[in-house]
Formats: sequence, structure tokens, C-alpha cells
Amino acid sequence: MQSPRRTFPEPPYYAVVFTSRLTDDTYDYGETARRMVELASRQPGFLGVDSVRDGVGITVSYWRDEASIAAWRQDAEHTLARETGRKRWYEEFEVHVAEVKRHYGFRRTSSDEATDEARG
Amino acid sequence: MQSPRRTFPEPPYYAVVFTSRLTDDTYDYGETARRMVELASRQPGFLGVDSVRDGVGITVSYWRDEASIAAWRQDAEHTLARETGRKRWYEEFEVHVAEVKRHYGFRRTSSDEATDEARG
Repeated sequence: MQSPRRTFPEPPYYAVVFTSRLTDDTYDYGETARRMVELASRQPGFLGVDSVRDGVGITVSYWRDEASIAAWRQDAEHTLARETGRKRWYEEFEVHVAEVKRHYGFRRTSSDEATDEARG
Repeated sequence: MQSPRRTFPEPPYYAVVFTSRLTDDTYDYGETARRMVELASRQPGFLGVDSVRDGVGITVSYWRDEASIAAWRQDAEHTLARETGRKRWYEEFEVHVAEVKRHYGFRRTSSDEATDEARG
């Protein structure tokens, strides 16, 4: 949903849903979060990410396969960020790793006519 | 992540990730969105929902199985809301339907000690 809009491959691929609430100790959190998106985007198998926070934060990243998720978990800077998150930033988080079965979307056209897009 | 925190069953179960951007025509959108969460929560097979919007909106709902997702899609009020969404509210949306393979979480304890929780 970040522009420009991503093109996803045919399913199956993977989604990692990360839902969190922060503590009051958010020093360096924003900068690190941005850096993690930048680093993740360069990983092999990365397909896209959406992230929104308004109290609760939801970040959904999309990956080609389980191997690319595992490789990203092993990245040294990502590992350090996760450790700092547990020590300081996160009051609570949940992670769901899920295999995408289908994907579809909608985009309003310039004539404001609704159009369906291909369903995966 | 809404409080009180949900208890998820052992995987597999399902996640529906709905990512969207709104048009300027948001009359009745907020009320309808709240109503849909309320209605969905009463459906058989509903496990939980998280929803955040800040420009982009991400709503992730969790379901026991594909049958419960299909039944919710057929709810008359939900169907009408989706139609209005395409006509008026959504500039763009994406839906990913995914099978949750594993789930884990973290919650800071009252002593501020980090603890892992069972991994699904």
C-alpha cells in the first residue's frame, strides 16, 4: 500500500504480522524502525511491507518463502534491534507467520469507476 | 493486541490482512467500520482483530478456518458495507488471506523482566 504499489507474485508466499504496543522508553525506536524497513527491503525474498502505528502498531511484511524470513531473522543488526525491543521498547508484541493463500485488491480508477483486479 | 489480550488456538488458523487508503468521502465510514468489528466478533470462528489507521489502514482479523471466513463474507450487512466501500470509501485496498503457521509473543512483566511466551 506504500506507493508505488507492490506487485505480488502468485501465492503461496508469506506474511509476517507484527502487532505491538510500546513502553514510554522509545528513545531511538523510530530511527531503528525506519532502518529495519530499509534493511529488510534489501533482503533476498522481500516482497513488501506496510506499517501503521496509532497507539497499537501493526507491521505486515511479505516474503517469498520461509527461507527468506529465516535469513532476515539472522541479520546481525536486526537481531540487535529485536533484543533492544525486548529490553526497552515493547510493552507487548505478537507475531503471526502465515502462508498467503490468495490475494486480491481494488484500486479506484481516474474515472472513479470501481474495478476488480486479478484474484490470486 | 486490543485489551484484554486474545488467546489464540494452536495453529493452523487463518489471518485476513486488509490494507487500505480512503477517499475524501468518508461519510459513515467510521461508524460502519466499528459496526463491522462488532458484527465480526459475534461470528462463529472469529478469533480476534487488530485495526490501526494513520493514513494507511491495516486491519488483521483472525479466524478458525476458511469456512468461518466464507460465512462472514456472506453476512448481508457485511456485503452491503463492502459494496459501499468500493463505491465511496476506498481509494485502494488489498486483501491477503493467509494460513497462520506459528504464533509467538512477548509481554513485559510487572517487574519489567522480559519473558518469552509459548511458541505455537
